[in-house]
Amino acid sequence: MATEVIDKAYIIDIIAACSNKQVQVVADLLEDLHPEDIAYIFYDISLEDAQFIIDAIEPEKAVQVVEALDDDILSRFFKGYESEDIAKRFITLLDTDDAADMINVLPTQRANEVLSYIEDKQFAGQIISLLHYPENSAGGLMAKELIKVKDSFTVTECIEAIREQAEEVQKVYTVYVTDDYDKILGIISLKQIILSRADIKVGALMKNVEDLVKVNVYEEAEEVANLMYKYDLDAIPVVDALGRLQGRITIDDIVDFTKEEAERDYQLASGLSENVESTDKVLVLSRARLPWLIVGLIGGILTSAILANYEADLAAIPKLAFFIPLVAAMGGNAGVQSSAIVVQGLANRTMGAEAILPKLKKELLVGLINGLICSAILLTWNIIIGYDSMLGLTVSLALISVILFASIFGTITPLILNRLNIDPALATGPFITTTNDILGLTVYFLIGSLLL
Amino acid sequence: MATEVIDKAYIIDIIAACSNKQVQVVADLLEDLHPEDIAYIFYDISLEDAQFIIDAIEPEKAVQVVEALDDDILSRFFKGYESEDIAKRFITLLDTDDAADMINVLPTQRANEVLSYIEDKQFAGQIISLLHYPENSAGGLMAKELIKVKDSFTVTECIEAIREQAEEVQKVYTVYVTDDYDKILGIISLKQIILSRADIKVGALMKNVEDLVKVNVYEEAEEVANLMYKYDLDAIPVVDALGRLQGRITIDDIVDFTKEEAERDYQLASGLSENVESTDKVLVLSRARLPWLIVGLIGGILTSAILANYEADLAAIPKLAFFIPLVAAMGGNAGVQSSAIVVQGLANRTMGAEAILPKLKKELLVGLINGLICSAILLTWNIIIGYDSMLGLTVSLALISVILFASIFGTITPLILNRLNIDPALATGPFITTTNDILGLTVYFLIGSLLL
Repeated sequence: MATEVIDKAYIIDIIAACSNKQVQVVADLLEDLHPEDIAYIFYDISLEDAQFIIDAIEPEKAVQVVEALDDDILSRFFKGYESEDIAKRFITLLDTDDAADMINVLPTQRANEVLSYIEDKQFAGQIISLLHYPENSAGGLMAKELIKVKDSFTVTECIEAIREQAEEVQKVYTVYVTDDYDKILGIISLKQIILSRADIKVGALMKNVEDLVKVNVYEEAEEVANLMYKYDLDAIPVVDALGRLQGRITIDDIVDFTKEEAERDYQLASGLSENVESTDKVLVLSRARLPWLIVGLIGGILTSAILANYEADLAAIPKLAFFIPLVAAMGGNAGVQSSAIVVQGLANRTMGAEAILPKLKKELLVGLINGLICSAILLTWNIIIGYDSMLGLTVSLALISVILFASIFGTITPLILNRLNIDPALATGPFITTTNDILGLTVYFLIGSLLL
Repeated sequence: MATEVIDKAYIIDIIAACSNKQVQVVADLLEDLHPEDIAYIFYDISLEDAQFIIDAIEPEKAVQVVEALDDDILSRFFKGYESEDIAKRFITLLDTDDAADMINVLPTQRANEVLSYIEDKQFAGQIISLLHYPENSAGGLMAKELIKVKDSFTVTECIEAIREQAEEVQKVYTVYVTDDYDKILGIISLKQIILSRADIKVGALMKNVEDLVKVNVYEEAEEVANLMYKYDLDAIPVVDALGRLQGRITIDDIVDFTKEEAERDYQLASGLSENVESTDKVLVLSRARLPWLIVGLIGGILTSAILANYEADLAAIPKLAFFIPLVAAMGGNAGVQSSAIVVQGLANRTMGAEAILPKLKKELLVGLINGLICSAILLTWNIIIGYDSMLGLTVSLALISVILFASIFGTITPLILNRLNIDPALATGPFITTTNDILGLTVYFLIGSLLL
């Protein structure tokens, strides 16, 4: 089923059918759509129509639609339902990890109500145990559902165990082998099971735990992601301090986590302090931007206070002011370039074993080359335009200094933030441009007051 | 095996063993390491030592190490080998897609030589057919290795087919069902095969092609990634125009593609024009940064030319210059914030069905609120500090205008770039800050010359 059919006309048809309460028409219209595509339509329709759709389609598909909703749409959507409905129509039909994620979008009071309506108490208990883990930890990402067998099982017994457990596990990547105390001993792939003789013991086939990549429940999600990407894993077992199997994390959850992280980093670097989307309300959008604008404003006020010291110079040579934006902008650009490389190196771990000093030396060299080239261009221009040669020299000297300084500052700042466990992506944002403005212009006017 | 053991001392031990030509010591030191971890060490050692390591460890593991190397390290590493060695020791042991990727890092002449040394001509032919597809297309990402069966097969015959084909397929996610002309009819999961009666026909078990998400060989990689993420797929079948199965793309390749794309976007937004890493040479780093620095420089020169028109004003009121950096910086910050939201909305498709006009209205409102707040703060400050009230008013009015203007410009630019099929991530880079500088300061001095 192609996704291209979802155009404006299609959505208008659906909305019309919803407001006319035509259950069958809605069901027919949506029959060929994947649940993820139906979820996508929810961006463009009212809460009432969304509920009508959920009632019109098959219950199983409805759950998948709800599962595919974004957190903010989901939390609005749930407002139209009783806690009992949420528990019985949606939560109960999910895997534990998705159930826990869904419960997480509800206010605490509501979440407890919903949990109390879940009839399968073991399932509810598993969800609650998952809710205890920090959101961005292995425990917070894992699902309790997995297939496990004892190492003494034969392949036939193993297949029987899979048959019993497979119903509640959507995607079977591997089968986990444990001892009597749930301690993980190894894993075995479905491919191996299919291709092995029926009487072979699982223990003889499995990949041993020593060769296995696994994580502790409290491991940070970012580290889990790094391990799974590095070793090309589809799923990773999660164990407690005693090595007992607690759950597994599948690659799709890690991909979602990584995408959210990347969006957050990008927003931080762009000076947005909250996770916002263009569909959010004006006040939310405005609040997310204000902190950095005010940081920039304070920076600007500081710069104006510094420039105030050079009022006499400015009065004597107003031309000095012409190059204020150039000096400020070039510092910002060079600083952001340097910090971007460091931030990325830190993120993808290519900046591990090296020391800081050679890196700085290299950045200085790069800054010197680019500074010299830019300064030469600028000097040539200022001579052509006929500016006073000392002014031209001042601007060009300031430009080299600013680029050099910004390169160093752009390199060191993210490294320091990283040491302090602050997200280094902050360094490429308004923070670095503002600081460079202040220091760059100070250098400019110092050189100016010396030379002119 | 934990990865924490790879510390500096460990690497020094390895380097020492390599230069003393102690094959067994090197092999012992590396025995417990995953291939990906050994690849990681290659960042810190010489080409000769890397070759020594590859010779010291088991050939199969050696291939996995080489497979895990970054393109630039790989291309340097290959310089130490004859074409015949590359073909026989590495390429021949890989899947077609990884083999094609590896061939791609070699210069054309060399690549042809390597291909000619591959003894399995069918395999070589498959690699060559993959090399024909654009790098960022489904064909460029897919592997030829997959398991396929006929719809008339029983489950038993299907297992037999898997047994025959499984050796050359590393990860079996699903089995593809085709007709006699290789046209794809459906898929069937290993879980289904394990859990079904031996005499059932595959055709009766499979998920039909109509419900299947598949892509054409020429589909863009980004679209493939979107589909796989949206539908939580582990693998996606790739077909030609006649619906014939050409290969499959697995999630690990898509994850790699997405990470590279994200890095490239981040670099573009930071003003780096080439894909660079901190380990690259000084001249490479310098060249990657120069284009945007020069764009910034030209912007700065333009700004200086505009300010030159206001020399008389500046001479009369030098204090006007104090706020040049503030006005310029705030325009840049606000513009980047607006464009970041649009760029992200375009990337994750939440900005689909809406029209441009309501978005602009919203941005204007956000800009107005934040502009008013910032201007009020600034005006208060300028009154406290005792500046002339008309100067204070000028600066605050300019600030509102600049923030408003930057919000509009930051929203429209990425949308236009997107229409023109230019990567909108460019819009959050130096381009937008430079343009805002020029226009923001023009507004500032226009207001200044009117009010003062």
